[in-house]
Amino acid sequence: MSDVNTRVLPGFMELLPQEQLEFNRIKQIIVNEYQKFGFTPLDTPVIERSETLLAKAGGETEKQIYRFKKGDNDLSLRFDLTVPLARYVAQHFSDLTFPFKRCHIGKVYRGESPQKGRFREFYQCDIDVIGHNELSINYDAEIPCVIYSIFTNLNFGKFTIKVNNRKVLSGLMENFGISNISQDVLRIIDKIGKISRDDLISELKKINLSETQIKSLMELIGIRGNSDFVIGSLKNLNITNQNFIDGINELEKVTSTMKLMGIDEDYFVIDLSIARGLDYYTGTIYETNLDDYPKIGSICSGGRYDNLASFYTKEKLPGVGISIGLTRLFYQLNEAGIINSDQKTVADILVLPLSNDQFKTALNVVQSIRESGVNADILLQEMPIKKRFKYADKKCIKYVVVVGEEEVSSNTLTVQNMETGDKEKVSIENISTYFR
Amino acid sequence: MSDVNTRVLPGFMELLPQEQLEFNRIKQIIVNEYQKFGFTPLDTPVIERSETLLAKAGGETEKQIYRFKKGDNDLSLRFDLTVPLARYVAQHFSDLTFPFKRCHIGKVYRGESPQKGRFREFYQCDIDVIGHNELSINYDAEIPCVIYSIFTNLNFGKFTIKVNNRKVLSGLMENFGISNISQDVLRIIDKIGKISRDDLISELKKINLSETQIKSLMELIGIRGNSDFVIGSLKNLNITNQNFIDGINELEKVTSTMKLMGIDEDYFVIDLSIARGLDYYTGTIYETNLDDYPKIGSICSGGRYDNLASFYTKEKLPGVGISIGLTRLFYQLNEAGIINSDQKTVADILVLPLSNDQFKTALNVVQSIRESGVNADILLQEMPIKKRFKYADKKCIKYVVVVGEEEVSSNTLTVQNMETGDKEKVSIENISTYFR
Repeated sequence: MSDVNTRVLPGFMELLPQEQLEFNRIKQIIVNEYQKFGFTPLDTPVIERSETLLAKAGGETEKQIYRFKKGDNDLSLRFDLTVPLARYVAQHFSDLTFPFKRCHIGKVYRGESPQKGRFREFYQCDIDVIGHNELSINYDAEIPCVIYSIFTNLNFGKFTIKVNNRKVLSGLMENFGISNISQDVLRIIDKIGKISRDDLISELKKINLSETQIKSLMELIGIRGNSDFVIGSLKNLNITNQNFIDGINELEKVTSTMKLMGIDEDYFVIDLSIARGLDYYTGTIYETNLDDYPKIGSICSGGRYDNLASFYTKEKLPGVGISIGLTRLFYQLNEAGIINSDQKTVADILVLPLSNDQFKTALNVVQSIRESGVNADILLQEMPIKKRFKYADKKCIKYVVVVGEEEVSSNTLTVQNMETGDKEKVSIENISTYFR
Repeated sequence: MSDVNTRVLPGFMELLPQEQLEFNRIKQIIVNEYQKFGFTPLDTPVIERSETLLAKAGGETEKQIYRFKKGDNDLSLRFDLTVPLARYVAQHFSDLTFPFKRCHIGKVYRGESPQKGRFREFYQCDIDVIGHNELSINYDAEIPCVIYSIFTNLNFGKFTIKVNNRKVLSGLMENFGISNISQDVLRIIDKIGKISRDDLISELKKINLSETQIKSLMELIGIRGNSDFVIGSLKNLNITNQNFIDGINELEKVTSTMKLMGIDEDYFVIDLSIARGLDYYTGTIYETNLDDYPKIGSICSGGRYDNLASFYTKEKLPGVGISIGLTRLFYQLNEAGIINSDQKTVADILVLPLSNDQFKTALNVVQSIRESGVNADILLQEMPIKKRFKYADKKCIKYVVVVGEEEVSSNTLTVQNMETGDKEKVSIENISTYFR
């Protein structure tokens, strides 16, 4: 044995088997729901040419990227799944049918300074719909519909999908005649919830918004109510800027279609204060919060963009999408005590031959359970009887199928419930039906 | 548009949606079978400390590794899933229950010179059973049992699991008094099938094996027949070397247990010519071939080892495992024409409103199909009717659920089978039952 460091690198998540099973369960629900809505799964390389990944990036992204040379190649690890999607669609354009709906669950890499809840390797679970030249705004409503379906299934308690439209705020800025600092305003608004209202106002003052402008802006982003009320309030402002009006109309169309699609109105709001940091989005934007855990922040975010792949192709590819940052979400839910993975096992059933004499019968039993589609383990290691049950216990097994001398001679197995201690007799021929 | 290169890097696999669906189907069968046998899924970081990954490696591995600096850290991408398993078990030893059965499906990285069928990023699908201090040889029989179950399910035609034991060959070398060149002999034998018998013999001569030794060796590795016959023939050689005898006894135990576990004897053989290049293995070794596609070579390989993690821990951790190289396997099967992914879709059903008037009904219909657990898509983009059907056709949709004026007024949908052209009338309330 040497002194090799076996700890996982800082900023990388590594789970124990029970936690991993719970993580996978959540991931599987996300995949299933994505696919249920007709999003086709893609898988692209983790390594890309640096020139490709960085065609658009800059600033923070470029600093965080894992970039290296291998031979003559300048390579990087992907930092999101959107840039690889853009490259993929540009490259395989003629093989795809538009609107093209894809989902992608994969690891991405960002060399952030490690801190609680920040990861350098993390799963993103993305869906996007890409149109060719045009894309119906109906898809802007379908995205939150998928999210609604996922978080209803995941059962993490009440959640709220927040919808906004970039055009509303940028229209307001145009109306103020300050669209040149529109990005700065959005970046400040994006801090809502993280800084106080007073600090927000003083930041807006610093970039030279007038008292009147700040008042209008704060009023606008403070509008609360159901979607009809918010849209009515926006219309009543009588702002004639076309961008602003388009934004309201789009919000109206998206939220009314969301209702048609069956999303319970208690589960979404128009929230004019959500801004999303990225200048990438051009219309609808989304965030989602768990109502009981506001500190976790948005658990999935996304929006509408005019053109996915302008750096790679002349084709115009408008799209809309959303991303769930699964690694961070899992970490936060775990910290908040929402996730209970203590008793998880890959197989709830353990077949336990008491001695070598019952080995053959035990093998037949486990085989018949598995053939019925149920996961089942069998202890193949010899050990004292007491240790056998301790092994089952330590593995959090739910049902031990005891195969002892008596069981073999009577053709009747003993099924022991490890939580209650209850024992039940089940005939060998009925054992697979019993568990199925 | 710039001239950014959007082609995937050489040696990296990127699939079109249909192929990806078929790839995922195969991957899912492997995962399901692994878990059915009680192997718990793990997921470790793709990036590891170079000192950790390279504690044991050297030679080819070190040359092929993707290694880079990020800040002060000397990092590498994992080149297999075994070294990360060793690190994981050493690190989390006290949290695990032994025998510890884990499966891991993940991407690994090797900067090989790109050539047909060789990949720099590829999926490995591994299972291993790790014991603490001891591990029953029964697990050596369970591993091929899992493989048998997987390839029976995958339906790629007849396959043969080849089993051997390292001790037989190394015992023979000891008996010859040439155990010092045992590794060289194994490496030459490993070439069987790739080079001619004459070339094999001349290579053995080059490392100074005598005519008698070569004759004995060639006779031994040429023994063919069912497992009882092979074991009988080995015993008849009357070689008294203990290693050799242990090897025979282990082979006998493993193959008889494989039969007890329900593996059809037509699907496995003892093949004394399989050697596995790595010096890592110490007992049972496995290869598997598709009978109809011998050129593909072994589609999964593995074996028994004495100590998993000697570089990381003082604990003795014997184990046995196997790995399916899924990316290469998929590529080879595709080349051989075994895989037909042309008509694959993530959702076989497309709900098609003929105009905006049927939009609401169509949304209800697609929602009820999805709620019954069936994947279904809906066209949300407006386009001329002819184009709608063309869209369905291009997407290889199997069933189009037409929602037109007539359908809405009669509460009866038209389900069009896109392969046969057949149309069927199904009432709206029965549509989800129809597809389930």
